[in-house]
Amino acid sequence: MEKREQLYEGKAKKVYATDDSQMVIVSYKDDATAFNGQKKGTIAGKGVVNNRVSNFLMQMLTESGVPTHYIRELNDRETLVKKVEIIPLEVIIRNISAGSFAKRYGVDEGIVFAQPTIEFSYKNDDLGDPLINEYHAIALNLAGPNEIARITDMAFHINEVLKAYFATINVELVDFKLEFGRVMGDYIVLADEISPDTCRLWDAITHEKLDKDRFRRDMGGEVEAYNEIMYRIFGEKC
Amino acid sequence: MEKREQLYEGKAKKVYATDDSQMVIVSYKDDATAFNGQKKGTIAGKGVVNNRVSNFLMQMLTESGVPTHYIRELNDRETLVKKVEIIPLEVIIRNISAGSFAKRYGVDEGIVFAQPTIEFSYKNDDLGDPLINEYHAIALNLAGPNEIARITDMAFHINEVLKAYFATINVELVDFKLEFGRVMGDYIVLADEISPDTCRLWDAITHEKLDKDRFRRDMGGEVEAYNEIMYRIFGEKC
Repeated sequence: MEKREQLYEGKAKKVYATDDSQMVIVSYKDDATAFNGQKKGTIAGKGVVNNRVSNFLMQMLTESGVPTHYIRELNDRETLVKKVEIIPLEVIIRNISAGSFAKRYGVDEGIVFAQPTIEFSYKNDDLGDPLINEYHAIALNLAGPNEIARITDMAFHINEVLKAYFATINVELVDFKLEFGRVMGDYIVLADEISPDTCRLWDAITHEKLDKDRFRRDMGGEVEAYNEIMYRIFGEKC
Repeated sequence: MEKREQLYEGKAKKVYATDDSQMVIVSYKDDATAFNGQKKGTIAGKGVVNNRVSNFLMQMLTESGVPTHYIRELNDRETLVKKVEIIPLEVIIRNISAGSFAKRYGVDEGIVFAQPTIEFSYKNDDLGDPLINEYHAIALNLAGPNEIARITDMAFHINEVLKAYFATINVELVDFKLEFGRVMGDYIVLADEISPDTCRLWDAITHEKLDKDRFRRDMGGEVEAYNEIMYRIFGEKC
């Protein structure tokens, strides 16, 4: 597999072409951003943690029947994935109230929902990734009705798998963001990443935050938090 | 039916108790507000138009099988209705893009959707009536799953009835807001009002706005617009 030109640089990752038109290489950076890019910083080692954690969880999901873009880990920061056409929806599953949900609806963080919830945001930086529902996503041709139904089913299944796994390492899966993409034949796969950048992860006993909220909220200890997740999964730090 | 003490004064209506604990009197004002009360004004005769138009449409909906809070019109500005426990959701049906939808998703006004859409806002002035989806409305106990399903069915049915009627008077029903309430036994009825305050109504040929957007957007001609709707329905102005 030959790494070729850079196709794209995002906030936390770069994407490179390869000599196979159906595959690209994702390279994880230590750059951290929040609030739609208004806050910028660096979390040392974040790229390594997110790459390894995301690959581990993607493989676990593959084994549970979820198709993903993951092909293979190339090194600590780089992974070979299927090239996908990203569906411009951020898919958020919540088990416990936190973050924008708590603020938007004027409720405390930490309320455990009787059932998980799903919500969609329209991936559009210029518009500030506005909340969107399935009717509007379909009306704007962001996804078809069958795609929305499939994504919803997959997202709730992914939640069950991840929640059960995180419980084994004493972590509460509070909420997380997923992205999906289309591969050949319009087949939908899980894409992007699953990491402390995209999940809220709380220690199950102390409720200590082990995720990007430490950066968003200037709490400090973000390097240690990312490493703690790495340690609980792999028994080693980066 | 005896009118008793004022129970509540809203932005566009007052509500009075009666000698029957299950009934209240709604009194329509000429006061107009927009942008969550930030803009205030008066539209002469609006109270009369909204009272008469809303009662006419509520009766039409009753005949089509939709239960409503409407009992009987008392005079030009006052109507006797069933006392309800309002479900704190604004239910918005859209046939054509306009207003907050067009702004939020960066699209033009006037796009005709292949299918109508529904959306919910959490009725809460302090939070600015934020958009909410059915999962979150249930998680926050604003309504039960069966209530959300019933409201959704009723709202789409109401849209079909109203759209067909407005077409007969050369008016396009662009979008509108409904509120629902619970009466004894948790039975759900259509409540609030259906009027040029709560609907976007465009002339079917010229697309001229015949609704509260004339006030919101400082276009002038709001008294004439409200009267035009009254005239097309009743053949008389107020």
